[in-house]
Amino acid sequence: MVVSTISGSSPLSYSNGTTIPLSTFSSNSFVNVEKGDPVAFRSYWEKMREECTIEIKGDEWMSYFGDTNNLCWYMVPQMRDAILRLHDMVGNAVTKDKFLVLGTGSSQLYQALLYALSSLEPSDRPINVVAAAPYYSEYKDATDILQSRLFQWTGDAALYDKCEPYMEVVTSPNNPDGTLRVPVVNSGAKGKVIYDLAYYWPQYTPIIYEADHDVMLFTFSKCTGHAGSRIGWAFVTDIEVAKKMIRFVHLNSIGVSKESQIRAAKIIGVICDGYQNLKFIESDRLFFYYSKRLMKERWEKFKGAVEQSKVFTLTKYPTSYCHFNKDLSEQYPAFAWLKCVEGIEDGESYLEKLKIRTRGGKRFGVDTKYVRISMIGTDDEFIKLCTRLSNAKRE
Amino acid sequence: MVVSTISGSSPLSYSNGTTIPLSTFSSNSFVNVEKGDPVAFRSYWEKMREECTIEIKGDEWMSYFGDTNNLCWYMVPQMRDAILRLHDMVGNAVTKDKFLVLGTGSSQLYQALLYALSSLEPSDRPINVVAAAPYYSEYKDATDILQSRLFQWTGDAALYDKCEPYMEVVTSPNNPDGTLRVPVVNSGAKGKVIYDLAYYWPQYTPIIYEADHDVMLFTFSKCTGHAGSRIGWAFVTDIEVAKKMIRFVHLNSIGVSKESQIRAAKIIGVICDGYQNLKFIESDRLFFYYSKRLMKERWEKFKGAVEQSKVFTLTKYPTSYCHFNKDLSEQYPAFAWLKCVEGIEDGESYLEKLKIRTRGGKRFGVDTKYVRISMIGTDDEFIKLCTRLSNAKRE
Repeated sequence: MVVSTISGSSPLSYSNGTTIPLSTFSSNSFVNVEKGDPVAFRSYWEKMREECTIEIKGDEWMSYFGDTNNLCWYMVPQMRDAILRLHDMVGNAVTKDKFLVLGTGSSQLYQALLYALSSLEPSDRPINVVAAAPYYSEYKDATDILQSRLFQWTGDAALYDKCEPYMEVVTSPNNPDGTLRVPVVNSGAKGKVIYDLAYYWPQYTPIIYEADHDVMLFTFSKCTGHAGSRIGWAFVTDIEVAKKMIRFVHLNSIGVSKESQIRAAKIIGVICDGYQNLKFIESDRLFFYYSKRLMKERWEKFKGAVEQSKVFTLTKYPTSYCHFNKDLSEQYPAFAWLKCVEGIEDGESYLEKLKIRTRGGKRFGVDTKYVRISMIGTDDEFIKLCTRLSNAKRE
Repeated sequence: MVVSTISGSSPLSYSNGTTIPLSTFSSNSFVNVEKGDPVAFRSYWEKMREECTIEIKGDEWMSYFGDTNNLCWYMVPQMRDAILRLHDMVGNAVTKDKFLVLGTGSSQLYQALLYALSSLEPSDRPINVVAAAPYYSEYKDATDILQSRLFQWTGDAALYDKCEPYMEVVTSPNNPDGTLRVPVVNSGAKGKVIYDLAYYWPQYTPIIYEADHDVMLFTFSKCTGHAGSRIGWAFVTDIEVAKKMIRFVHLNSIGVSKESQIRAAKIIGVICDGYQNLKFIESDRLFFYYSKRLMKERWEKFKGAVEQSKVFTLTKYPTSYCHFNKDLSEQYPAFAWLKCVEGIEDGESYLEKLKIRTRGGKRFGVDTKYVRISMIGTDDEFIKLCTRLSNAKRE
């Protein structure tokens, strides 16, 4: 059946230049560390595969509704309870006196927030949306795709000097560079802040405080690695913002997959059980212990490869006290952010020649000397990445 | 925990006036036939619950990607195969030489299409989006929610007389009135047609021809009743349209829940197995036989109640030959469309007094004499609806 498939073996090209190679793994092909598919933690879930198994029968979860007593009517109680339990255990966010809004990944909630925050303060001009560079490359595209009259992408928050209302997206730890962030706009104008805390989990960064902001976004994908489930959530303090977001999700997709909710609830439950019921004596059976160790090992290996290459420098991260792990720790971000040494102008092209596919600085609002590299791909990809990187030579 | 729940027992109110009563089922409360939650077929799935059970282990379906060889990279092969098999069996759509695009329900794909079709023909004015009244009430809201510069809701297609490009949504069978539809715009302007075939399944209408249009939308919710899964799909002939739609789904939600895809594939597989492998001798075990009989029984009971009421008249439907069932049959739409008799001006208010909550004509672009009533709610709701309706008396 030829329907719906593309013949041939060339990469699929998208309008923004993103490509998906059809064979990432053959030895002569590219190692693709351009995307952020978080499959690194699969080895953990393989060990836990039976404990985490869900079963859904033919007649279950058929309705659009998950809980008609909840403002977020499409969210099932199990999902809500699991999310609250997880934050309570990790201590990375204050959930009390906040509204929990579920989304089809945090991407959908980002757009729900743009809608909610802009439509609650009607203006005759679109509200400016900014983020400090380097910023997550998809924010711009997701903001501008429908050319809304409510909001528009305006670029680097550090350069924002208009006296017009704005929304600032603060991603902390930041994608692409892993740094911990605070708002930077200083124009005196009225602004709202969206905290994207996708990477504020113990495997990536010490949990240094319990985040307590008016608008916070989280995603299941980067927490546990289950990106295929498309589960994200937001905590918001203002009920009007929550209602508008839910209205957006209603019109956009009439809620969020019940199957994904049931599975995410189960998986989060298994993580929390591990810690709270002391089921596992080996600490390797504890998710954040395992995943942090994996990130640490990868980062150590990666730093070695980068040093050997003598072509790139790496962002430096501070050591902080982690309230969850009760120890001093470095950060191990989901992405590495490399800067070329003097004399190399285009990191992405340079690495293309080494058959390493990365995402260049331009996509993140900075110059081509920078590249972003995923640290959360498969073991295979990661090993190849380090080998090729350590063999890099100055041209 | 007070987080995220609303205390009290008042209905949840939305900005568009939609309400969700917290207790639909107590005897003095409203019977809510305002929404289209398709739970009527649950009795079938209860019988099939074991055959349809899916099991997903902890390490499965973790990636964003479903099939990197497919243009629609987030769709798993099982999902694609099931959709093609179903249409092949039912004969309600030509799938050959078309691109299959998966969405988080057809709502998401509706928006993906507005984006795709409008952005492929850049214009300095928003493209007008029209549908013949009475039209599905959510089209307007979904079109205008972000105040896009690419497209705008323009209302009744029958009144469209501008010489500007347009998109016409043809819902057939139509929501709310169940009629079979063709495009109606006759302005001479250049237009694209979106066929929403959500209800073009044998339980609702005879399958009179194999639909073969450039843009066709389908949804799992109304086909099998599994609305909680949020699975919809589109067939499009133009690869550029398909690419743009996939780009939209990418930015909107980075694909579609893998758990939902696995479950939908399983359920569709069980339906097709029933017919194709002749596993079941009792025809009541065949989904479309069962669901059509259920719809027919409900419609007969409902028509009796409406006649007794002497307050409303019903849309009349033709009898046609169904190529799937190989018989002559009436239509049994998912919604009933009632018109008040002379002297009653507001059907929704009238029925509110009878404690029947419906959606009035105004929401569908026509006058208040009309109301839409869901025929696919629970048995309880349906029985109460008929009882209250047959007791209706002229004021």
